[in-house]
Amino acid sequence: MDIHELLNKVKNGEMEIDAAEKLLKQLPYEDLGFAKLDHHRKLRSGFEEVVYCSGKSTEHLVRIFQSFNEKSLNVLGTRATREQFNAIKAVIPEAKYDELSRIIKIVRSETEKIGCIAVCTGGTSDIPVAEEAAQAADFFGSNVMRVYDVGVAGIHRLLSKIDEINRANCIIAVAGMEGALPSVIAGMVDKPVIAVPTSVGYGSNFAGLSALLTMLNSCAEGISVVNIDNGFGAGYLGTQINRLAVGKNE
Amino acid sequence: MDIHELLNKVKNGEMEIDAAEKLLKQLPYEDLGFAKLDHHRKLRSGFEEVVYCSGKSTEHLVRIFQSFNEKSLNVLGTRATREQFNAIKAVIPEAKYDELSRIIKIVRSETEKIGCIAVCTGGTSDIPVAEEAAQAADFFGSNVMRVYDVGVAGIHRLLSKIDEINRANCIIAVAGMEGALPSVIAGMVDKPVIAVPTSVGYGSNFAGLSALLTMLNSCAEGISVVNIDNGFGAGYLGTQINRLAVGKNE
Amino acid sequence: MDIHELLNKVKNGEMEIDAAEKLLKQLPYEDLGFAKLDHHRKLRSGFEEVVYCSGKSTEHLVRIFQSFNEKSLNVLGTRATREQFNAIKAVIPEAKYDELSRIIKIVRSETEKIGCIAVCTGGTSDIPVAEEAAQAADFFGSNVMRVYDVGVAGIHRLLSKIDEINRANCIIAVAGMEGALPSVIAGMVDKPVIAVPTSVGYGSNFAGLSALLTMLNSCAEGISVVNIDNGFGAGYLGTQINRLAVGKNE
Amino acid sequence: MDIHELLNKVKNGEMEIDAAEKLLKQLPYEDLGFAKLDHHRKLRSGFEEVVYCSGKSTEHLVRIFQSFNEKSLNVLGTRATREQFNAIKAVIPEAKYDELSRIIKIVRSETEKIGCIAVCTGGTSDIPVAEEAAQAADFFGSNVMRVYDVGVAGIHRLLSKIDEINRANCIIAVAGMEGALPSVIAGMVDKPVIAVPTSVGYGSNFAGLSALLTMLNSCAEGISVVNIDNGFGAGYLGTQINRLAVGKNE
Amino acid sequence: MDIHELLNKVKNGEMEIDAAEKLLKQLPYEDLGFAKLDHHRKLRSGFEEVVYCSGKSTEHLVRIFQSFNEKSLNVLGTRATREQFNAIKAVIPEAKYDELSRIIKIVRSETEKIGCIAVCTGGTSDIPVAEEAAQAADFFGSNVMRVYDVGVAGIHRLLSKIDEINRANCIIAVAGMEGALPSVIAGMVDKPVIAVPTSVGYGSNFAGLSALLTMLNSCAEGISVVNIDNGFGAGYLGTQINRLAVGKNE
Amino acid sequence: MDIHELLNKVKNGEMEIDAAEKLLKQLPYEDLGFAKLDHHRKLRSGFEEVVYCSGKSTEHLVRIFQSFNEKSLNVLGTRATREQFNAIKAVIPEAKYDELSRIIKIVRSETEKIGCIAVCTGGTSDIPVAEEAAQAADFFGSNVMRVYDVGVAGIHRLLSKIDEINRANCIIAVAGMEGALPSVIAGMVDKPVIAVPTSVGYGSNFAGLSALLTMLNSCAEGISVVNIDNGFGAGYLGTQINRLAVGKNE
Amino acid sequence: MDIHELLNKVKNGEMEIDAAEKLLKQLPYEDLGFAKLDHHRKLRSGFEEVVYCSGKSTEHLVRIFQSFNEKSLNVLGTRATREQFNAIKAVIPEAKYDELSRIIKIVRSETEKIGCIAVCTGGTSDIPVAEEAAQAADFFGSNVMRVYDVGVAGIHRLLSKIDEINRANCIIAVAGMEGALPSVIAGMVDKPVIAVPTSVGYGSNFAGLSALLTMLNSCAEGISVVNIDNGFGAGYLGTQINRLAVGKNE
Amino acid sequence: MDIHELLNKVKNGEMEIDAAEKLLKQLPYEDLGFAKLDHHRKLRSGFEEVVYCSGKSTEHLVRIFQSFNEKSLNVLGTRATREQFNAIKAVIPEAKYDELSRIIKIVRSETEKIGCIAVCTGGTSDIPVAEEAAQAADFFGSNVMRVYDVGVAGIHRLLSKIDEINRANCIIAVAGMEGALPSVIAGMVDKPVIAVPTSVGYGSNFAGLSALLTMLNSCAEGISVVNIDNGFGAGYLGTQINRLAVGKNE
Repeated sequence: MDIHELLNKVKNGEMEIDAAEKLLKQLPYEDLGFAKLDHHRKLRSGFEEVVYCSGKSTEHLVRIFQSFNEKSLNVLGTRATREQFNAIKAVIPEAKYDELSRIIKIVRSETEKIGCIAVCTGGTSDIPVAEEAAQAADFFGSNVMRVYDVGVAGIHRLLSKIDEINRANCIIAVAGMEGALPSVIAGMVDKPVIAVPTSVGYGSNFAGLSALLTMLNSCAEGISVVNIDNGFGAGYLGTQINRLAVGKNE
Repeated sequence: MDIHELLNKVKNGEMEIDAAEKLLKQLPYEDLGFAKLDHHRKLRSGFEEVVYCSGKSTEHLVRIFQSFNEKSLNVLGTRATREQFNAIKAVIPEAKYDELSRIIKIVRSETEKIGCIAVCTGGTSDIPVAEEAAQAADFFGSNVMRVYDVGVAGIHRLLSKIDEINRANCIIAVAGMEGALPSVIAGMVDKPVIAVPTSVGYGSNFAGLSALLTMLNSCAEGISVVNIDNGFGAGYLGTQINRLAVGKNE
Repeated sequence: MDIHELLNKVKNGEMEIDAAEKLLKQLPYEDLGFAKLDHHRKLRSGFEEVVYCSGKSTEHLVRIFQSFNEKSLNVLGTRATREQFNAIKAVIPEAKYDELSRIIKIVRSETEKIGCIAVCTGGTSDIPVAEEAAQAADFFGSNVMRVYDVGVAGIHRLLSKIDEINRANCIIAVAGMEGALPSVIAGMVDKPVIAVPTSVGYGSNFAGLSALLTMLNSCAEGISVVNIDNGFGAGYLGTQINRLAVGKNE
Repeated sequence: MDIHELLNKVKNGEMEIDAAEKLLKQLPYEDLGFAKLDHHRKLRSGFEEVVYCSGKSTEHLVRIFQSFNEKSLNVLGTRATREQFNAIKAVIPEAKYDELSRIIKIVRSETEKIGCIAVCTGGTSDIPVAEEAAQAADFFGSNVMRVYDVGVAGIHRLLSKIDEINRANCIIAVAGMEGALPSVIAGMVDKPVIAVPTSVGYGSNFAGLSALLTMLNSCAEGISVVNIDNGFGAGYLGTQINRLAVGKNE
Repeated sequence: MDIHELLNKVKNGEMEIDAAEKLLKQLPYEDLGFAKLDHHRKLRSGFEEVVYCSGKSTEHLVRIFQSFNEKSLNVLGTRATREQFNAIKAVIPEAKYDELSRIIKIVRSETEKIGCIAVCTGGTSDIPVAEEAAQAADFFGSNVMRVYDVGVAGIHRLLSKIDEINRANCIIAVAGMEGALPSVIAGMVDKPVIAVPTSVGYGSNFAGLSALLTMLNSCAEGISVVNIDNGFGAGYLGTQINRLAVGKNE
Repeated sequence: MDIHELLNKVKNGEMEIDAAEKLLKQLPYEDLGFAKLDHHRKLRSGFEEVVYCSGKSTEHLVRIFQSFNEKSLNVLGTRATREQFNAIKAVIPEAKYDELSRIIKIVRSETEKIGCIAVCTGGTSDIPVAEEAAQAADFFGSNVMRVYDVGVAGIHRLLSKIDEINRANCIIAVAGMEGALPSVIAGMVDKPVIAVPTSVGYGSNFAGLSALLTMLNSCAEGISVVNIDNGFGAGYLGTQINRLAVGKNE
Repeated sequence: MDIHELLNKVKNGEMEIDAAEKLLKQLPYEDLGFAKLDHHRKLRSGFEEVVYCSGKSTEHLVRIFQSFNEKSLNVLGTRATREQFNAIKAVIPEAKYDELSRIIKIVRSETEKIGCIAVCTGGTSDIPVAEEAAQAADFFGSNVMRVYDVGVAGIHRLLSKIDEINRANCIIAVAGMEGALPSVIAGMVDKPVIAVPTSVGYGSNFAGLSALLTMLNSCAEGISVVNIDNGFGAGYLGTQINRLAVGKNE
Repeated sequence: MDIHELLNKVKNGEMEIDAAEKLLKQLPYEDLGFAKLDHHRKLRSGFEEVVYCSGKSTEHLVRIFQSFNEKSLNVLGTRATREQFNAIKAVIPEAKYDELSRIIKIVRSETEKIGCIAVCTGGTSDIPVAEEAAQAADFFGSNVMRVYDVGVAGIHRLLSKIDEINRANCIIAVAGMEGALPSVIAGMVDKPVIAVPTSVGYGSNFAGLSALLTMLNSCAEGISVVNIDNGFGAGYLGTQINRLAVGKNE
């Protein structure tokens, strides 16, 4: 039952105003005691369920996944360890795990893939973060073009791919160390660039701070930045933009 | 002459391959000695000319504006002082200045306004940055909805506007101090949110660092961040997304 | 005059007991050589004994607990490992351990519970810190209302609980990542809000710095902040305020 | 009209449910175009109106003060310059200004003073911040005891005042440089201590960061911290606690 | 008299061992009381005299310049204000001042120019720092090729110049904001790149920290970095390398 | 028992003078309302009076100086502006001001000079901080040897002075920029070295942070560090050590 | 086939312009799917192949080494673990590993050693980083002079070696803790000094930040800095300078 | 043979001037290839040998200890692991290890203990650092008074010990968390206070930064600071001051 149905019922006298008011005020969620699961999320945002696994106890995590599973929803788990996955797989055999991106996926119904997002990396060490972005975007229904290891220290590699990249609706540019990739790409394309700094590097890299600052201070236009190593956030946002571009956001 | 014309001429023998290759390799720009102006920018990106005025000498600035002016281009100057504006106005009387956003505009031909971008602020002190975003977006051809002073310390003000905000194609959320506005908005809408931290605040605000970190660490999905006080960058990026949404990006 | 002289004078009738008591109230403690235990603390502050276990050697820790135990005092151990607890339990079988909050409790005489403190968290990963606050508050004699997983990314969950929260005498708001929860709560209640940033997050979270700065820069009134992950400190302070509110502080 | 009246009217049929729902949802405020003033604030929180003047244009500021003034409300302006005050005084002659704390006050009806808050400073340079706290607390109806220049470098000065300080319902401890005052006070009293770091100092003080970190890391219990130089926030929070202690919060 | 002469005199008995030992131990310099001027510097390093003017009192500065002037040495003054220059010019009329780079020059004997150093900038706002580098290099005897405003946001501008740049013996790459220029250049040339971060930018640029970290973390080889805005240091070091390359360092 | 009671008892013979003196030694000070002046300081510490002038209002400052002056005490004012000095001189004509170190001195009775402290600087720009140290040490009764401009970039200048320096009882080493002077000195002498970082420098110097960290991380033994630019603190501490060395500390 | 051959073929009609243009645009590299290997690198830069091993999966790493190996190229692997080496050795038995510098080397054809680079360290703990520099420089064809453990805390050790050091074409100065070594060396030699901060130290060393800032702020001329612990970068750059000095760079 | 002997021999013709000059210039040390051991250190400074063990390979460490051992010198090893100790003990059975302070001692000839140093700590967790200070001071010949667990949160514990503390020649004050102990002690004694911040704490303690800044910004006079956790440095410096005080420094 969505909000319009509910309001119709109120109009038609099928529901008490008090009850309706209470329902509307809270937007329904299920209370597991320790976590408030929001099953209306997909209805409101058009996005599937996501669980941030890092730091959650295995017991809690399994219960969260089971709760979604009972409603036959697609679920994406991010930053999961193999141990967490094993525990989930024991109760939900359909669960899949990707070692590189540390993503757990339970796909009950395939989503149609639309539009295109380009996911680029500066080096090979940035690939785990890029894969988190790419697989999240794919999960939410975007076609994904992967263009890896095209960092600015050998600019010719990027130049040979740039026309292809610019055909995507938006670009996710993932880079560690000095993090200059998004600037260089944004100077050559006319699509939004989502910059993802990674913690790849050492010394004055300060676990990604260097790349983060580079991206925030870019003098190229059309760049915005997400948290260090936040591939998931970039994949989600990229899909929002991709949907707008293909006119699927209504 | 755009790139397709050029390649046609090569095909038809109207241009030597060498000359064509050289032109393509460099993409034409005009060299003022101290600054390389890129008159092909609009052709490539579909965006007008922009000049970052801060720190440029008045003499240099006037010559840059004149060079664009001679080509009858629309020009936007950001972070301009009134003194800089006065010098430009002396030679280009059509130039306009907005004290609040510190923007100089020279509009030769009106751009048709399309779609919609919502520009929101947490407080009244964030308005100068928000206006930079709003006026840049307007200059580049986006309709702009202003929703100011709806910060999270009085959440009811934001709640009463949220449906209206969600009708925009993307949201620019401008906030200083603790900078929580983008998180709260992103939790209630299903459109991309461009977060702009401002340097409004004192003490441990550290000139906007507090709001910047808040926005980068948001646990709401669909947020990306630009530099502190970078209203212009948000207006530019917002317009890119808005154009994609109304299908004008081809 | 040193303490022995003073006590001799009391014995010999050269000093009134009242005068001696006053002098002693300010000074006496037991010296274990490596740690100065202050058994008069409860008398002075009305609070039970607390031991910060982190970084203490097991041998020292056991001797500290034993010393309190011999006086039949209630004792709370914070930030204890299971190994530390096992060693203590071996000599004090009544000791209890809570894995989540890492608290050791030895309760000799139950404290009457008074008033009410609301302990809220932004997410489920903040629960260990919240439990440290809640269990410390409970140990010191406050009734505790737990309201977990009501973070600002889904503001409707918080809105549905806000009236209940405002019935407490003070609110402990625990949040990691962007840490916006205390701001939003303080904008809707009229009670003191003790903000507890947690180290939950990654990347530019910088181990809780992001949430800490957010809370310090809140534009809502009625907020103060304790150290990152300092649930205990919040529980102690919350109890002080709760006692004032029920008039028990005399 | 407060919320109870409103709900009574609904019950008695004097108001349509729709109208009531809309009113309740938004909580009424007046829209000046650039600022959303919240005249219901006093009703909800029991606190008077406050305007943060820093960074606001004089024109906007005068309109905000006039709007409150027309409703005959008491208003407190913080961080005001003398120029801002002069412009306000020109239209509201009753306005008063305190140079030291940079506070503007318009008092239409005197508030009865209750309970007691002790405001202490480490040095004489911390007095402006302390006065902001003291005058805000006074404005909101708290009795204030000032204990200035009792810093830890000459601990005997503090020791001689400590019994007096402990008679207050809560203590606001203001200190710059190393900021150790709140720790020392909290070790000797059994009331909540609100620690206010100031930006007094130089070099590695980093504009108050040193004192801020000291206070957050205090090993004394019963301390919480507000932003650097945030005297107002401490005065507001102190009054909340003071009201709870005298039972006036219902 | 140089060190070999001195040792010969000792061998020949023309100088006492004690006196010789003392002279050798100290290396001669002139003591002005407040500053130790080192007139042997040119002999030892082959570089002319340099005075860092910033923060020196005008009186001291004039005396330092006069002392060098009396020995008819070439002198370079860096970070000089026009006021400082005026005072020096009053007593040394041959002194010249360059407003952009804030350099004072007194050239008694022209140095032959050798080899070549390329000085590149990302934007026009970086030119003052670049000019400090270029003019210092010129003063010390290097030919200088200026390639300004070739930042990475419009990479085609740089690509069209890259062959020319690679003909220099070393490259000084000056950039603010995200500071990616040195990485991109180093990826395309095979000469040492001296990276100079500038303080051009705002917000999370943190006065050049962003560009500094970018350059230190470059994944291109052949880059080293000097202090923020340290054009002089780059010009000096560039000349050392240039001299080595033309075989003039013996 | 308060001070009046105590003094009455002495008067009435109820308390020995010795006992009363001891009690009084720990407590008495004069209360100006805004500042607690401690006239017994000299008795307790053997050091004269010191006033930190920075940030104090002229009115307060004059009253503080007058209060000391009435007791005919020697007074040292640090970080004073010329304006502050002029106001003090108007009422205390004997006051002297030193522009370089920004010190105000009122010397009623000359202190005998004992022992020796060496005050060294890396460059000429560090002299103001060094002079604050030197003049404070002189004021408190130490002989001072000044060795300025002996920074590590020209190590021979330092080597020629090192024997002389090592004859002092302790060394104050003042340096900005990279701040390596104290390390090099401590490696060559066997006396305590008090390191004073200065804020001289630019860019990644971060207002003295660079020199501060250098000094804290010195691998030479016998170094300790005071705050950035804290010449006074070094002069005070140096005198304490100097007094110990000449056996004057009893 | 190098670029000149290719252009000759175009001139002679042996290759289509389209094919040539495409080849030139991309500069040939081999695409392993996850990594773009650039086999033309040696041709362009005159330097051998280098692989940054840290963080790469063993499987990927082995494939990268094999790909180079099949072309019989010399390869240097940096920051390799023994586990990574073992896997590579299993398929390429000629691979050698150096535990101290964590370098893997595969040398197919010996490079002639030219010129000289001095590699100096402050302490013995800096040797691993120094060895990375020395072995990289050796691998690329430079003679290397090692001068270890000559830190500034015992300056006489350095003084006795300084003439020898100055005979090198450039100096790599490696130091942790306070990092003063490069300053002191640069003050005594007239060759470029490449400063390498190491993460050796503790506390306020902040993992090498202290040494990094020291080196960036050096008041000695002729210093530039690479990233913390970046021995490889220093060895590469040192070789570039060394080659220029011996005239081998054409 | 010390320097005076050597100069006598020169005077008496027992040594050639050349040989003497060479010896004097270098100050003799033994070169182990990887480490330059300075056996003259004791002669020059009057302090025994010290080896910083952290990060040194066991093989290197054993050879360093053996080299000293062969000269029958007393040696102190700091920051040693038990593994390092075991390896040393295997070849030098007289070696002793203290687990708490991680110090290795080899004492060949007992040093007479002189004067007194007080070593105080804020809490029990600071004891390992304090013991490093105390044992180093003892090793170098100072009497040590230990006053542990007297932190400012319970100021009465410190007050009862203060007279005793002030009888020492200097005070080493060791504290983590907020680090206020040195300020409070320095306000009550008239001897130099060496402040040692420790890394004890969590959250915004930032591994000792909080305590470090507190100590650097102390408003009490007579304080200087060493690196975080640098107990050894404090013990060494304290002994230098203690020796000056007892007149043993000649």
